Amino acid sequence: MKSIERENNYCVIMAGGVGSRFWPYSRQAKPKQFLDFFGTGKSLLQMTVERFLPIVPVENMLIVTNVQYKELVLEQVPGLKQTQVLCEPCRRNTAPCIAYAVSHIKGLVAGKRGKALSKDGIWEFEHGINWDAEELNANIIVAPSDHLILDNATFIETVKKGLDFTGSKDVLLTLGMRPTRPETGYGYIQMANNAEHGTGIAGNEEDIYPVKTFTEKPNLEMAKVFLKSGEFLWNSGIFLWNLRAIRHAFMDFIPELADKFSAGEKYMGTVKEEDFIQDMFPTCPNISIDYGVMEKAQNVYVLPSDFGWSDLGTWGSLYSLSDKDEQQNVSLHCDSRFYDASGNIVTLEKGKLAVIEGLKDMIVAESDRVLLICRRENEQHIKEYVTEVEHQFNGQFN
Amino acid sequence: MKSIERENNYCVIMAGGVGSRFWPYSRQAKPKQFLDFFGTGKSLLQMTVERFLPIVPVENMLIVTNVQYKELVLEQVPGLKQTQVLCEPCRRNTAPCIAYAVSHIKGLVAGKRGKALSKDGIWEFEHGINWDAEELNANIIVAPSDHLILDNATFIETVKKGLDFTGSKDVLLTLGMRPTRPETGYGYIQMANNAEHGTGIAGNEEDIYPVKTFTEKPNLEMAKVFLKSGEFLWNSGIFLWNLRAIRHAFMDFIPELADKFSAGEKYMGTVKEEDFIQDMFPTCPNISIDYGVMEKAQNVYVLPSDFGWSDLGTWGSLYSLSDKDEQQNVSLHCDSRFYDASGNIVTLEKGKLAVIEGLKDMIVAESDRVLLICRRENEQHIKEYVTEVEHQFNGQFN
Repeated sequence: MKSIERENNYCVIMAGGVGSRFWPYSRQAKPKQFLDFFGTGKSLLQMTVERFLPIVPVENMLIVTNVQYKELVLEQVPGLKQTQVLCEPCRRNTAPCIAYAVSHIKGLVAGKRGKALSKDGIWEFEHGINWDAEELNANIIVAPSDHLILDNATFIETVKKGLDFTGSKDVLLTLGMRPTRPETGYGYIQMANNAEHGTGIAGNEEDIYPVKTFTEKPNLEMAKVFLKSGEFLWNSGIFLWNLRAIRHAFMDFIPELADKFSAGEKYMGTVKEEDFIQDMFPTCPNISIDYGVMEKAQNVYVLPSDFGWSDLGTWGSLYSLSDKDEQQNVSLHCDSRFYDASGNIVTLEKGKLAVIEGLKDMIVAESDRVLLICRRENEQHIKEYVTEVEHQFNGQFN
Repeated sequence: MKSIERENNYCVIMAGGVGSRFWPYSRQAKPKQFLDFFGTGKSLLQMTVERFLPIVPVENMLIVTNVQYKELVLEQVPGLKQTQVLCEPCRRNTAPCIAYAVSHIKGLVAGKRGKALSKDGIWEFEHGINWDAEELNANIIVAPSDHLILDNATFIETVKKGLDFTGSKDVLLTLGMRPTRPETGYGYIQMANNAEHGTGIAGNEEDIYPVKTFTEKPNLEMAKVFLKSGEFLWNSGIFLWNLRAIRHAFMDFIPELADKFSAGEKYMGTVKEEDFIQDMFPTCPNISIDYGVMEKAQNVYVLPSDFGWSDLGTWGSLYSLSDKDEQQNVSLHCDSRFYDASGNIVTLEKGKLAVIEGLKDMIVAESDRVLLICRRENEQHIKEYVTEVEHQFNGQFN
C-alpha cells in the first residue's frame, strides 16, 4: 500500500510548552521537554525524536516550538536541518500549531513532486489545485515532546498499526491509554461499541474503536467509574491522520484557521515562510486541537494502547513513576540521605547532596538559583508561586 | 601605668574551629569563622579583628588557626604579616593553642627589648632567664574568632576595664555575659561574693568578682535556677591576663604543657619556630583552657558584661538573633517567599530564591552542593549526619 511506505510518514513533535508546573526544575529558558528528567543523559525531546526514528525518516520530522527555543532544539537534535524546526512567534495552543505543521508538510510533499519555484521564489501553484488528490500522500503522527514512554517497542507496534489505518482511510485517530488507576489529572476518551456505530471503517480493525466522547479531567469518584467501566481510555494527545483527513477537518471545524493557512500555502517551504508565519500566526485563534477538531468531527477513532505512558504533567505523576526507597522517598539526579522522612520527592542539580530530616510528603526541587519546598498535595499552587515570583523579581527567576 | 599602654596590649584570636554544627553552611574548607553570617560583607573573623583595633595595635594581633586555613586568614585579614598567623599542625583544644600564643608573645616581647639573634638564628637566651620580671610587659586578650558581638562600644569599654585590672594584677580574668534567658547551650560561671572571698584584689573593682565555680551546660530546670539567682553568668570564652599570670598558671596546672613550650622558647619569633611547632605540637595533651587552668586556679575573676554576645554555636542561636517576618521565618543571604510556613530559618547562597510552602520550624540550609533540611529541634543531630555523609561520600561534601 503506497500510503504507508516509510517515506510518506511524517512526524510533528510539539515542543512549545513552557511547563511552569515543574518550576523551578523546568524554567522558561529551558522548559520540561529540554530537560533530562531521569538522569539518562537524554532530554524528553531527544527521547521523543529517537522513538520515532524506526518509522519516520529523519528528514520527515518536524519540531514545532517557540522561536526562543529554536537554537536549543537544533542543539539537542543535531541531525535536523534548520527548516525542520517550525517556529511559532507566540503561543496559540495546539490547533494553530498543528495547522502550521500540516501546511508545511503540504509544501514538502509538493516539493517532492517536482514543483519548481517561480522567479519570485515561491511555489508555482495554480490556485485551487486539487490537494486532496490521492497522489498527495502524507501520513502524519502528531505527538507532544514532553511525555514519557517506557515501552518503545510496543509504542512502535501501536503507531504502525495506527498508520496502517490512517494511511488508507480519511479518519482522525488518537492513541488512548488503557487506564491503570483512577487518575484525575488526565482527560478521558470513551470508546463506542463498533457494532453499534457500524461505520464499516473500523470494522476491519478489531482493536480500533470509534470515539463516543472526549471528557475533561474527572473528579475522583467519576474517575473510579471510568476505570471500572472499561470503556474509557486516557487521552494521550498523540494523533495519527493523513494529510487529506486533517486538512478537511480544519476546513470543516475551524475554517477561520484553515483559511489563514490556505492563504500562505505558496510560501510554505520557501524563504518567505518565516515572514508569513511571523505576521499571520499571532492572528490565529487560541484553540486546542481537542476542542476545535477532535470533539466535533465524526470520523474520530481511538486505538487502545499500553506502552507505559505518562504525560509527566505533575510532580505527582513523576513521583508515581519513579523508584522509591523503603520510606517511599524519591531522589532524582542527586544523592540524598533521609532521616525520619517519607514520601518526599527530591531533585537537585546533578552532583549535589540532600540531607533531609523530619520531612513528609513534600516536593524539594532545586535548580538554577531557586529552591522550592512544597507539600505534594499542594503542587497545583506552584503556578501561582511562579506568577508571584515573576511579579516580584521581574522575571529573574522564571 | 606602664602595663596598660596600648603598645603592650596583645590579642590572641582563636580561629582553628571546623564548626560542623552549621554544616552545610560552614564546611571543613571554610568553617564558620570565615563566613559572612549575616550578609554584612564581613566574616566573623574580620569582625573580630576590627573589633580589637581600637585597643590593640595591629602588629600585636595573633591569629591561631589550623595550618590549612593560613592562606584564608591572610586573605581575609590583609593587614597581617605571615608571622602573625600561628599555625597549629593539628587540633589540640584551647590550652595548647593559648600556650603556643603565649610562648610566641614572649618571643615578641623579648625581640622588642633588643635581644639579638645568635649566629644560629635563634634568640640568645640564657636558660632560666627571669621572664617574670616586671619589665616583660604584655597584657593579653584571648578571644574566639567566631562569636557575634553586637555592641562594639560597650565591648571596648569592658575590655579596657579588664585590661586595667589584669595589667596591674597577676590574675586570670574572664568576661561573663549577664544571662537574658535560661539558655541550656552555654556553660555558666558562678560569681563569689567579694566580701566573702576577701581577696583584697577585686575589692578595688566593684564590678569584678572572684569566680566561685565554672559549670557545664545545665538542663533547662537548672538554667532557670541559674537565671533567677543572679549569681550566674554565661561563659563567653574571652580571657584577659598578663604574660606572667598565664605563664604561672600553665606551670602550676598543666606543667607538662608548660615544659614543652619552655623547651622551644628560644625558637619563638625565629625561622625555627615553625619546625619546632610542627614536631612538638602534636605531642601536646588535648585539653581545654577551662578544664586545664580556669577551673583549677584560685586567682580567677569574672567581669560581668552586656554587649550583645552570642557564641553562634547553633542554628537555634542564629535563629534567635535574626530578624523574623510575621510568621517568625528567618531568611539569611537569600530572597525567600513563604506560604503557610512558619518558624523556619532559611539560608541559601547569595542571589538565590527560596519558595517554601507548608513547612514549620525547620532549618533549610544550602551551600556548595549540599542542601540540609532538618527540624530546628533536632539540630543536635547534624553532627551525626556530617559524619555519616563523610563516611559514605569519602569527604566530598565536608
